[in-house]
Amino acid sequence: MRDLLETVAAGELSPAEAEAELAGYVTGDAGRFDAAREQRRGIPEAIFAAGKTPAQVAELAGTAVETTDRALVTRADDDHVAALESHLGEEYPDATLERRGSSVLAYGPDYERPTLEATVGIVTAGTVDGPVADEAQIVCEDAGATIDRIDDVGVAALDRVLDQADRLREADVLIVAAGREGALPTVIAGLVDTPVIGVPVASGYGHGGDGEAALSGLLQSCTVLSVVNIDAGFVAGAQAALIARAIDHSGE
Amino acid sequence: MRDLLETVAAGELSPAEAEAELAGYVTGDAGRFDAAREQRRGIPEAIFAAGKTPAQVAELAGTAVETTDRALVTRADDDHVAALESHLGEEYPDATLERRGSSVLAYGPDYERPTLEATVGIVTAGTVDGPVADEAQIVCEDAGATIDRIDDVGVAALDRVLDQADRLREADVLIVAAGREGALPTVIAGLVDTPVIGVPVASGYGHGGDGEAALSGLLQSCTVLSVVNIDAGFVAGAQAALIARAIDHSGE
Amino acid sequence: MRDLLETVAAGELSPAEAEAELAGYVTGDAGRFDAAREQRRGIPEAIFAAGKTPAQVAELAGTAVETTDRALVTRADDDHVAALESHLGEEYPDATLERRGSSVLAYGPDYERPTLEATVGIVTAGTVDGPVADEAQIVCEDAGATIDRIDDVGVAALDRVLDQADRLREADVLIVAAGREGALPTVIAGLVDTPVIGVPVASGYGHGGDGEAALSGLLQSCTVLSVVNIDAGFVAGAQAALIARAIDHSGE
Amino acid sequence: MRDLLETVAAGELSPAEAEAELAGYVTGDAGRFDAAREQRRGIPEAIFAAGKTPAQVAELAGTAVETTDRALVTRADDDHVAALESHLGEEYPDATLERRGSSVLAYGPDYERPTLEATVGIVTAGTVDGPVADEAQIVCEDAGATIDRIDDVGVAALDRVLDQADRLREADVLIVAAGREGALPTVIAGLVDTPVIGVPVASGYGHGGDGEAALSGLLQSCTVLSVVNIDAGFVAGAQAALIARAIDHSGE
Amino acid sequence: MRDLLETVAAGELSPAEAEAELAGYVTGDAGRFDAAREQRRGIPEAIFAAGKTPAQVAELAGTAVETTDRALVTRADDDHVAALESHLGEEYPDATLERRGSSVLAYGPDYERPTLEATVGIVTAGTVDGPVADEAQIVCEDAGATIDRIDDVGVAALDRVLDQADRLREADVLIVAAGREGALPTVIAGLVDTPVIGVPVASGYGHGGDGEAALSGLLQSCTVLSVVNIDAGFVAGAQAALIARAIDHSGE
Amino acid sequence: MRDLLETVAAGELSPAEAEAELAGYVTGDAGRFDAAREQRRGIPEAIFAAGKTPAQVAELAGTAVETTDRALVTRADDDHVAALESHLGEEYPDATLERRGSSVLAYGPDYERPTLEATVGIVTAGTVDGPVADEAQIVCEDAGATIDRIDDVGVAALDRVLDQADRLREADVLIVAAGREGALPTVIAGLVDTPVIGVPVASGYGHGGDGEAALSGLLQSCTVLSVVNIDAGFVAGAQAALIARAIDHSGE
Amino acid sequence: MRDLLETVAAGELSPAEAEAELAGYVTGDAGRFDAAREQRRGIPEAIFAAGKTPAQVAELAGTAVETTDRALVTRADDDHVAALESHLGEEYPDATLERRGSSVLAYGPDYERPTLEATVGIVTAGTVDGPVADEAQIVCEDAGATIDRIDDVGVAALDRVLDQADRLREADVLIVAAGREGALPTVIAGLVDTPVIGVPVASGYGHGGDGEAALSGLLQSCTVLSVVNIDAGFVAGAQAALIARAIDHSGE
Amino acid sequence: MRDLLETVAAGELSPAEAEAELAGYVTGDAGRFDAAREQRRGIPEAIFAAGKTPAQVAELAGTAVETTDRALVTRADDDHVAALESHLGEEYPDATLERRGSSVLAYGPDYERPTLEATVGIVTAGTVDGPVADEAQIVCEDAGATIDRIDDVGVAALDRVLDQADRLREADVLIVAAGREGALPTVIAGLVDTPVIGVPVASGYGHGGDGEAALSGLLQSCTVLSVVNIDAGFVAGAQAALIARAIDHSGE
Repeated sequence: MRDLLETVAAGELSPAEAEAELAGYVTGDAGRFDAAREQRRGIPEAIFAAGKTPAQVAELAGTAVETTDRALVTRADDDHVAALESHLGEEYPDATLERRGSSVLAYGPDYERPTLEATVGIVTAGTVDGPVADEAQIVCEDAGATIDRIDDVGVAALDRVLDQADRLREADVLIVAAGREGALPTVIAGLVDTPVIGVPVASGYGHGGDGEAALSGLLQSCTVLSVVNIDAGFVAGAQAALIARAIDHSGE
Repeated sequence: MRDLLETVAAGELSPAEAEAELAGYVTGDAGRFDAAREQRRGIPEAIFAAGKTPAQVAELAGTAVETTDRALVTRADDDHVAALESHLGEEYPDATLERRGSSVLAYGPDYERPTLEATVGIVTAGTVDGPVADEAQIVCEDAGATIDRIDDVGVAALDRVLDQADRLREADVLIVAAGREGALPTVIAGLVDTPVIGVPVASGYGHGGDGEAALSGLLQSCTVLSVVNIDAGFVAGAQAALIARAIDHSGE
Repeated sequence: MRDLLETVAAGELSPAEAEAELAGYVTGDAGRFDAAREQRRGIPEAIFAAGKTPAQVAELAGTAVETTDRALVTRADDDHVAALESHLGEEYPDATLERRGSSVLAYGPDYERPTLEATVGIVTAGTVDGPVADEAQIVCEDAGATIDRIDDVGVAALDRVLDQADRLREADVLIVAAGREGALPTVIAGLVDTPVIGVPVASGYGHGGDGEAALSGLLQSCTVLSVVNIDAGFVAGAQAALIARAIDHSGE
Repeated sequence: MRDLLETVAAGELSPAEAEAELAGYVTGDAGRFDAAREQRRGIPEAIFAAGKTPAQVAELAGTAVETTDRALVTRADDDHVAALESHLGEEYPDATLERRGSSVLAYGPDYERPTLEATVGIVTAGTVDGPVADEAQIVCEDAGATIDRIDDVGVAALDRVLDQADRLREADVLIVAAGREGALPTVIAGLVDTPVIGVPVASGYGHGGDGEAALSGLLQSCTVLSVVNIDAGFVAGAQAALIARAIDHSGE
Repeated sequence: MRDLLETVAAGELSPAEAEAELAGYVTGDAGRFDAAREQRRGIPEAIFAAGKTPAQVAELAGTAVETTDRALVTRADDDHVAALESHLGEEYPDATLERRGSSVLAYGPDYERPTLEATVGIVTAGTVDGPVADEAQIVCEDAGATIDRIDDVGVAALDRVLDQADRLREADVLIVAAGREGALPTVIAGLVDTPVIGVPVASGYGHGGDGEAALSGLLQSCTVLSVVNIDAGFVAGAQAALIARAIDHSGE
Repeated sequence: MRDLLETVAAGELSPAEAEAELAGYVTGDAGRFDAAREQRRGIPEAIFAAGKTPAQVAELAGTAVETTDRALVTRADDDHVAALESHLGEEYPDATLERRGSSVLAYGPDYERPTLEATVGIVTAGTVDGPVADEAQIVCEDAGATIDRIDDVGVAALDRVLDQADRLREADVLIVAAGREGALPTVIAGLVDTPVIGVPVASGYGHGGDGEAALSGLLQSCTVLSVVNIDAGFVAGAQAALIARAIDHSGE
Repeated sequence: MRDLLETVAAGELSPAEAEAELAGYVTGDAGRFDAAREQRRGIPEAIFAAGKTPAQVAELAGTAVETTDRALVTRADDDHVAALESHLGEEYPDATLERRGSSVLAYGPDYERPTLEATVGIVTAGTVDGPVADEAQIVCEDAGATIDRIDDVGVAALDRVLDQADRLREADVLIVAAGREGALPTVIAGLVDTPVIGVPVASGYGHGGDGEAALSGLLQSCTVLSVVNIDAGFVAGAQAALIARAIDHSGE
Repeated sequence: MRDLLETVAAGELSPAEAEAELAGYVTGDAGRFDAAREQRRGIPEAIFAAGKTPAQVAELAGTAVETTDRALVTRADDDHVAALESHLGEEYPDATLERRGSSVLAYGPDYERPTLEATVGIVTAGTVDGPVADEAQIVCEDAGATIDRIDDVGVAALDRVLDQADRLREADVLIVAAGREGALPTVIAGLVDTPVIGVPVASGYGHGGDGEAALSGLLQSCTVLSVVNIDAGFVAGAQAALIARAIDHSGE
């Protein structure tokens, strides 16, 4: 520890980097950033922007880039993105920002994205499921998995999904996002011999709307599925990435 | 009316038959029986046994047989059936009783069952949906429709239902009963060009169990379905019979 | 198939038309359009605008017109309508657009609306039920049924509905839209011998508001009703149209 | 107070009677009995048996008879009734017990039932609503109101209720008990110019069963109704009795 | 009827007035106005503005003034009020408009407000319950009852309500509006011997917020209460007015 | 640790006692007993019997007596109690068993119950709240607090609670158990200047029954209350005991 | 009382101060202010701004300052704060205003804040829990307790909370605010021997969002916790202050 | 197919075996058995006994053994087991039956259980979670995975789980079953870098009881988890087995 503190004193290491090294997390005004999460959990911490102020999101993302060379922000609105661009642009001018829907991935020039020998299939039932699938996709890409994205194959026209059966069977793990009655994950899980993660999407209206019908349908599925919360694209993506990682590692 | 009252006075018509003639319903200790319902509503009144005492059910069924030559009792337990058999056996010894699951149909020797030129397809997703489909079936049979019953074609093994696609397309109207996540009515409604009535069944466990997931899934279906309450086999059967009747009449 | 591909190569058939012919659906950036739905399901696909971007709605509607000579868009807000008008005006300048409330029907110059020998009665309990009934009505009109619309006959003043009993009995199938406590569909279903479809409407406030009281009341109705989700005017209209179609065909 | 304590010392007044006189309530092992409730609230305390042991119910009823010459026990099962009969038979051998359904009224030889110049109409939609209406009726009878009971006039056959319109209009206040979708109180409230109290009944099954659909329907009624909890026959009866009492008193 | 039609032909009676006379209601573009409701139901129809367009509200109010010399509009926002003022100002320039919160009462120069010999006490638990109590008050005033309004006597400081016990006991019927946990109606109903109507108010936050805790508390009250829906000031006022009317009439 | 293992080897310490000493908990077939909980948490672990087999409960209680000289079992039915008596009677014949309702306290001959200089007031609204209050009481007694129990002072007769105001103010902390609408904790919390813990009780029926109305009412209380789950007498008692302990310790 | 009224007549005491003295509360247009609450309840009344108009809030705060030299306003938005600043600036120019998040504390120049010899630990699981903890903190500070605030120690990285175990054990009472699944209060309550109050926070999305999952988790906690409503920072702070006060007083 | 039919004709293959070969499923009175599920889905069909009659369960299990040499029955009560033992004992006397809790695994003498090079960790929070974990375990064992079972490490005593951290990190995939507030899966998922599947268990009481609090807590978890329905041990086990299978295959 003495060595580490001396590098701080010498200005070679920022206090945040040192705290990350020693405690595993970094404490700031906007909260603590869990810099050791990837190492401990296999998946780095993401910053959930909804409910935080733009300044808090920007500070947390800055700490993430400073200590782990990378930041992933989800559920960011335009104000969050503006604050991110301004703060990172100032503090980490070399960092690259990629936006996919409401998610932003930022990384420094030396960041090496991992690669996994495994394919995550990401499937949507309809057009409105797209943003949730996008959130899952950025997480899986960030983890280094290969993505096979198949859109708009809802069961109202069964041929749309049956026509994709071969591609579905080739993925190592599948994420299936569906709103309304959420029948698609069940139908797909009956066709493939790989793990399927169902993501209910907050579409629909009236009784069971906002994803509640889809959630309860997925939980009741007569096939084998595991489920994440309504619209939880991040969680589905991270769980799929952990499975992809387990598959990849076992092949070593 | 004078004539009618004279036939009562002469003992040629029972007071109940006369009240049925005059008021359309018959008033007894166990409630009023709506003797005019078939004429007015197209479907005769059924006696819902659950929540009534065996004696009340027996009395109401007796009134039904006395005034309309027929009685249909649903949701009858063994005590209800025993009371029915005893009461009708005593009062209407010529009546025939048919039991299907928890339903009992009783009719007098002169009763002529109607016939309809229309087929109602009745489909179940799994073994536990059988009793609900049975309740729908007895109503449709009683109304004179042809029945095509197709059991246990749940979507976990999609071939089971695709193998029946031609039979499904030949029915004039379909009743599809499904519990758990209730995906089958949606899948079938995507395959046929006829009206489909979905019946959620009170199976499943945990969140969305007891038919609530199936109900909300059917209400949210991305195809065209109309729905009845959980386990409402009678209502589904009666609605299908009214559609069959409309089809039949229009062909006259 | 060779012939078809040659007409594409010759520019006589658009790729979308060819895909519709071969696969039954057309794949675009905004999703897949189910061009074969009318043929398979009896009712053409409608485009549910809520939750989609104006550009997605316009693209899907364009594909619909291109491949089926017709498009029906429901739950469109002003932005959706503007995008529709602009996109279709540019791409299919001959197309006609009809707006009823939040629905838009677009069709090309050669489009022949079907006709059905059957009447759908559409009834509302109060002024606020109008838009939901409108959505049902445009679907039934589009399917070619005759419409008999009866407005504002809620049960608080029973004479309003009893005065219409004869008209109600003359329809082949009835759609009854009601919010608040939803008593009207039950009262009407006790008066007629035809199928009644109840549509709960998201009116009311406090406990059971937003249509939940009406929905549970319709599901619990002591008469024979089938039900669609809260505000599901499209589904009610399409189900009524399928029944009208079955009646019409049987009369052939 | 001295005088009162001396009558206790002299054995002319029981300690319970004295406590009732001084505090308004009597404290025993089974709880406190509110002996002053009739005077303060217009309606004497009733003993709700469900959830209490037979011994507790019997002790509370004994205290009620001792201090107010009367006891009303509701929701009593057979064990409660046996304990009541045994305890009161021993301690108050002159008391009379009247049982109506699950309610028991006990009173001493000197008890004078009050009389009110007002009629409470008590109406049921179906046979299963009977026990709830019975509970309301015993409370109103106990309060001295005239009762007009009209059974089984549910809206599935509208004539049943229209045939009773004149009787309904003659009551000073109406209690209408209905389960399933609970449409009857709304229909009746549209026909009469007197206060209507709706009582939802725990019948029905599936979604909205156990009286929840009826409750939310009554709360959403498009007419003027006040409502009590599901199966709360006692509360409906007591509220009607208070209204009858207000009408009676004002006529003095 | 001939005479009546001749007065129409002669321009002495408007078609709306004639329809009101003959049918009891008047049919317009915005719906049917129940002109006979006061006569039939004891309380005239009110126009619930929420969910209707300003133009619809204004038309219905105009019809009400034309045929019954009076209109009561509830839940009106500023746009509704502006449309009312403009439409009525043009068509019925002699009419007077009174606004209380979100309610508007309009009446013609010859309108005679009824009077009742009965007092309705209207009580609130807190400042936020005021608008709901206002809605009840305008209905009772319109019906001619005397009002005793007692504000902000919630049970957190019990003295506030105990200090008003005598006033509370003097009213003939009480309306008590309370949000949050809704304890006040129960406490008051334990102190008075008159009918109490509880109105849950949509205040509070978190679990049981928006009036649901208050509603369920009032339904479960261990005293005698009847209840209306959350925020249903109109219904509470109308029910209290019907009770006041019954008291008044009986005193004749 | 060597010393400890040697005492085990010498048979002076049982393996369970040694594991408790080393790990803080003891592992058996029926689960792990947290022997260090009192030291860590201030309140010893209790064994919640519901959902466990009698044999599991008996084994866990035996381990508790063996390692901490004491066991508290809650929610025990007769089978649990029989197994407890048999197992403890055999293994720990010197132990004393005390039963209060569904709770059982067992302790060895050397057990010294702690004492606290603080009074916990335990209050019930009605007779049915007794068992929940009993569960709280046994926990507080076991922790050494003085108990002041005040029963059946529900707000329907406000004098019952106002008569106890002085006793209520003298307690250091209050537990108030109430079912139905749960108004009593709010009323009491308005009268005293000490912490009040509200316990909703699963009484009542219909909407908000089984304690849900009381729970939401306590959470919405306009006074200051903290709350535990429905029927959670143990939790309320333990929290009150922790507060009593904090008061007692601070006085040292 | 005569003396008091003479000081009013002499202008030495305002009418509001006199009413506060005599009745314990002050009646104004915006409601009644409970000036005696601190004395009776141990915690002064706070003014909950949400749902009140800015003018009502300002008037109530003015009355509070006038009669108790202090006012605490919670859930104030910018309009409320502006009205407060304007009204108090005019009427009580000597008063000081402190704003923390959505809370405002105002006090006169002679106000002496109490002090308590007790520490309240206030803990958050994440950044979004901050405002709820702030509300609790201002109440505890206002009551004179010492505060130890520990932020952002959610269980996803268990080291964050374990690193604070010693600080957590040193507080006399703990408030733990957590949204999402609300696991932190349970984890902390397993580590300390003092009372823990859990505050569910309205974060999260989908099923169980808006704090409902956290609330039900806290109520089900397998440790000892008491709970307040979702986001009820004020209630948690006030309950902790009452406990701190009891601890402080006992040490006298 | 001709060959196959000839072996049937020759009595070398049963009709059921032939149907399984041709259609993939076998149709009997008790429903269709999906004999091809293992091949298609990776996990063989299990027979869910709850809701089926003992005879139905026995017939389906017989068909499973006949066509796949193995049957797994879950949620079997004593009657189901008796019927299984009797039917299989008669028809397949060589079959072995293994019972674990409410699950029964039956297999013929030639059945070769698969083996997977992967470890599934199965963890419970408390004693009552055991049966749900047992159901998961039998499925994983049947699929050939290595099981590491860790019981009763709930978070009330955090050391219990921290003491197992190394074992937890060594599993390839984890199933964590927890009732009440369900905090354990979240705590474990923060400690390991492998996929965690949370199973909410129907324990607890009051609000959020029967597993609903645990389910919503798992869905809201601030870590990465996927979830199955309440008590869905079979689904959790099958999903874990599919992941184990993917890991195993990738290592080939």
